[in-house]
Amino acid sequence: MTSSVDQDPVVAFLGLGLISGSLAGALKASNWGAEIIAWGPRAPSLERGQALGVIDRFSLDLAQVIDQADLIVIGAPPVATAKLLPEVLAHAAQGKQPVVTDMSSIKGSIVDAAHPFYPRFVPGHPIAGSEHSGVQAANSGLFQGREVVLTPVEGTEPTAIAAVEALWVTAGARVTQMSVADHDAALAASSHVPHMVAYALTAMLSSHPLHPMKHGGGALRDMTRIAGSDPVMWRDIALTNRDAILSAMDAVSIEHDRLRALIAEGDGPALEALFSDCRGVRREHDAILNPIPKNEEPSA
Amino acid sequence: MTSSVDQDPVVAFLGLGLISGSLAGALKASNWGAEIIAWGPRAPSLERGQALGVIDRFSLDLAQVIDQADLIVIGAPPVATAKLLPEVLAHAAQGKQPVVTDMSSIKGSIVDAAHPFYPRFVPGHPIAGSEHSGVQAANSGLFQGREVVLTPVEGTEPTAIAAVEALWVTAGARVTQMSVADHDAALAASSHVPHMVAYALTAMLSSHPLHPMKHGGGALRDMTRIAGSDPVMWRDIALTNRDAILSAMDAVSIEHDRLRALIAEGDGPALEALFSDCRGVRREHDAILNPIPKNEEPSA
Repeated sequence: MTSSVDQDPVVAFLGLGLISGSLAGALKASNWGAEIIAWGPRAPSLERGQALGVIDRFSLDLAQVIDQADLIVIGAPPVATAKLLPEVLAHAAQGKQPVVTDMSSIKGSIVDAAHPFYPRFVPGHPIAGSEHSGVQAANSGLFQGREVVLTPVEGTEPTAIAAVEALWVTAGARVTQMSVADHDAALAASSHVPHMVAYALTAMLSSHPLHPMKHGGGALRDMTRIAGSDPVMWRDIALTNRDAILSAMDAVSIEHDRLRALIAEGDGPALEALFSDCRGVRREHDAILNPIPKNEEPSA
Repeated sequence: MTSSVDQDPVVAFLGLGLISGSLAGALKASNWGAEIIAWGPRAPSLERGQALGVIDRFSLDLAQVIDQADLIVIGAPPVATAKLLPEVLAHAAQGKQPVVTDMSSIKGSIVDAAHPFYPRFVPGHPIAGSEHSGVQAANSGLFQGREVVLTPVEGTEPTAIAAVEALWVTAGARVTQMSVADHDAALAASSHVPHMVAYALTAMLSSHPLHPMKHGGGALRDMTRIAGSDPVMWRDIALTNRDAILSAMDAVSIEHDRLRALIAEGDGPALEALFSDCRGVRREHDAILNPIPKNEEPSA
């Protein structure tokens, strides 16, 4: 006879795409005996997720899924997450008090939208992604060795933080904590602006009369890969984390102009020193940026 | 009894590093029965190359190596190639007329330095590389599916062009031809400026108070990888292809400023359209930029 306390925990994904599907797949692949359920506004991606075996079952009834869950993961881009959050938190507070977390790459707008205040909501952001989208591109190894930043606020319950941390550790990630503002400024620089730079570079190449992209090698492959990312998601990120992105874009422009001046002046020693410094900085961070060797890396 | 016409051709590498060592290794791995010899100013890298099996033998005597060769590949960065070229061409012209080619990523300064005029010199550039250096990082699969651009000039012998083309096809590359000026402008945009952009981005991250590089994922891994490249080689490239690089850097700045303005104005539809165009352009060139699937890619 199984009492309710002995039952497997139920983890519910609200929205099922590449990131949430990858986490669901990682949980299924682990030894953790959770039941994985999902809600979404439309059936097709949920059906694909079930066919792929990353979720056990799904429903199109949001309230029903929230009521059944012990841990809720909102798996949606920033704008959709902010829209969904008030309804989820209000319903969660009336029920069995599930832990709620999200995966939005911007935390300020999420924390602003997190009303009514619910102490078991833990804002989170896995720093892992892909230029592909959809649950069919899910990859249960996506979070191996990657950082997941949690940005709890004043009043967030420590037990809820611990539950979300355990979820991510199960998926192979390492968990850190930052303030909301620091997260958004750091991620503007480490993720959002690199995307903007890839877009600017791709736009230049695209309008160049000699079609230089036809003559690209490994450097160009890497420097333009993320320009293939989801345009709607990146539009929303650009709009939502605007100030931090503009500030980091201006900082890149300053470095770009400084480098341009050194080249124009033909200042060889300064160029070599700058390039050498950059190599040192890059190599220092190699283990963080390449957490698993390339030949063991799952193909997304 | 073996007459001289039946003997295996001798391919000589002048300088042995990552790129030349990779080509030598690809030739050794092929069925082509060429003898691979090398010259260099110092013994250690040549000894490593011999120990790795990418060359059969070496000498520190440049004239002797040139005299023995049927096909000479200058395997040095742009500035060193330009310095070495006059001596090599003068000596080649006095001997058995070997075909000579180079692998410099800039062609204007090479063609300018190619005196005395030698009709069997074919300027070349394999669009493949690595952020690593040295023959110990050589990788015989480096050129698989990659483009090699030849920039013959008025008077270059067609038989010499054909010999260099055959060499590269043996290594798995595809060979194209461009004018010297078009090559340098296209490569400024497709390779040199992407490196400058990676340097500018890395410099920004390095001086950011929140240490954002500690919070990087796959996007940052790719967008900063080439900032780990050889500082001396990239100093030389920046100085040697200066005008074309400055022009393409200015074109990137224009796109960066345009994108900044759209974000500042909050123009969602224009951002989505721009990002969507970039995705289309990137996907169109996916087969060129990823000539072999990632999981079959040799680890450099």
